[in-house]
Amino acid sequence: MSSVDRVRVISRDGNDETEREDAVAVEEPLEIRLKSSGAGKGESFVTTMRTPGHDEELAAGLLFAEGLLDRRTDLVELGRPTDPRIDPELAANVVIATVSKEALARGESLRRRTVMGSACGVCGKTSIENVLSSERPPVASDLHLAPEILVRMPDRLRAEQSVFAQTGGLHAAGLFDASGRLEAVREDIGRHNAVDKLIGSAWLGERLPLSDRVLVVSGRAGFEIAQKAAAAGIPILASVSAPSSLAVELADAAGLTLVGFLRGSRFNVYSHPRRLRTAS
Amino acid sequence: MSSVDRVRVISRDGNDETEREDAVAVEEPLEIRLKSSGAGKGESFVTTMRTPGHDEELAAGLLFAEGLLDRRTDLVELGRPTDPRIDPELAANVVIATVSKEALARGESLRRRTVMGSACGVCGKTSIENVLSSERPPVASDLHLAPEILVRMPDRLRAEQSVFAQTGGLHAAGLFDASGRLEAVREDIGRHNAVDKLIGSAWLGERLPLSDRVLVVSGRAGFEIAQKAAAAGIPILASVSAPSSLAVELADAAGLTLVGFLRGSRFNVYSHPRRLRTAS
Repeated sequence: MSSVDRVRVISRDGNDETEREDAVAVEEPLEIRLKSSGAGKGESFVTTMRTPGHDEELAAGLLFAEGLLDRRTDLVELGRPTDPRIDPELAANVVIATVSKEALARGESLRRRTVMGSACGVCGKTSIENVLSSERPPVASDLHLAPEILVRMPDRLRAEQSVFAQTGGLHAAGLFDASGRLEAVREDIGRHNAVDKLIGSAWLGERLPLSDRVLVVSGRAGFEIAQKAAAAGIPILASVSAPSSLAVELADAAGLTLVGFLRGSRFNVYSHPRRLRTAS
Repeated sequence: MSSVDRVRVISRDGNDETEREDAVAVEEPLEIRLKSSGAGKGESFVTTMRTPGHDEELAAGLLFAEGLLDRRTDLVELGRPTDPRIDPELAANVVIATVSKEALARGESLRRRTVMGSACGVCGKTSIENVLSSERPPVASDLHLAPEILVRMPDRLRAEQSVFAQTGGLHAAGLFDASGRLEAVREDIGRHNAVDKLIGSAWLGERLPLSDRVLVVSGRAGFEIAQKAAAAGIPILASVSAPSSLAVELADAAGLTLVGFLRGSRFNVYSHPRRLRTAS
């Protein structure tokens, strides 16, 4: 499935009107199903709107962020529906995760605790107390990043955003090392999905915790993005835009260095600035 | 509760470093509980991350968009926890909706169909078939809007965005009439919440369908935003940014005029352009 769709559009500029073809970012639902080894087509766990591409990484990253997947052995397989009677277009929007008994039990317990989550949110947390509670230890990393390297990251990220360039409609998340090398980039119509794809890829490759990596996101840094970064053990999260109050609180508590408004030669540091101090 | 928090921030520009106070947009969870008339503190239906303010409108708009609230009589009351043993800070993050038996039953059925929704999404829709299905009739409106009036709306909206001006961190949604008058504006850290607050306000005031109104959003127009606009009977949805493929599909099917990239004197029309045609 493509990440870009062509649509007919009427472009207006003042009194000029032209009809032309335009590219839009594809948004399609992805249903993630859970099953244990053996028979069965799995039970629906979540449906999220996403831009097709790297669906398996998205599924792994989301299930990791939700606490369902922990150790790599929790995931047996990621597959697609194989029933030939299923419309191929629908099947392309489904990922079936075969997981360990322990992970399946965690999924059941999440499901019971859970009601619907609308908008962006702390879906899956039915009470406010759950939102801020975390069983994960704070980020442990003595990574140091030179500010001159940090400020060059957004341009590097934008240069790799192939779909955004065509549609203006996608968020990007990039994983950098301390020398400024862009290791991986993922794009999605949803800010959270881009991060889930990136972290899911690392989780699948058993590269967690990412204690020597920097996560740069094209959008704003809200609570959930900060939570995902901390869960993956990433010590520095940088956003080209604004952070939220709760992202600052979480970053402070989780030992995460939070950077906002990373633009040109400027940026703000909201927590744990030591990792960006110039040697003195 | 305030919409803006003050935080300590280290601002860096090249080699200059200054420490100062900065404003960030508040992000806090809002738990929406459902109950029937009579006793009880309600059962949690959803928790969404939002910027405090207009919480009752957000609750009403979200429950309307999800199809739980239909007629105005479905909602008996919106209240707060009154138990004095509850921490006031927690109570400020809870809205209790007392609803009709029919609405409560719809809520139960949504809950059963539902699993967790992560990121932005079509949470509450457990299967892909549900995502695109809608029992609502297409938007009926013969509204006509002059392009010269449309192009002035984003500036009007920005002028009213009080919190955004301070924090750079909020999305806005504005409701305009065909003469370009800005009737109402709502801001939130979540794009969907800003729209829910706006439509919730109109729903509470029994002003639906909004068949002679234009909805302008500061962010991108995804599927859910288009769906919310169509559900409220709004004939024109304009975004300053990109639409998604599914938003275009939905707008086309729902009789909604979808405008994207509304910037300066320019914009694109993705569906039902007749409402923006200049008389000839």
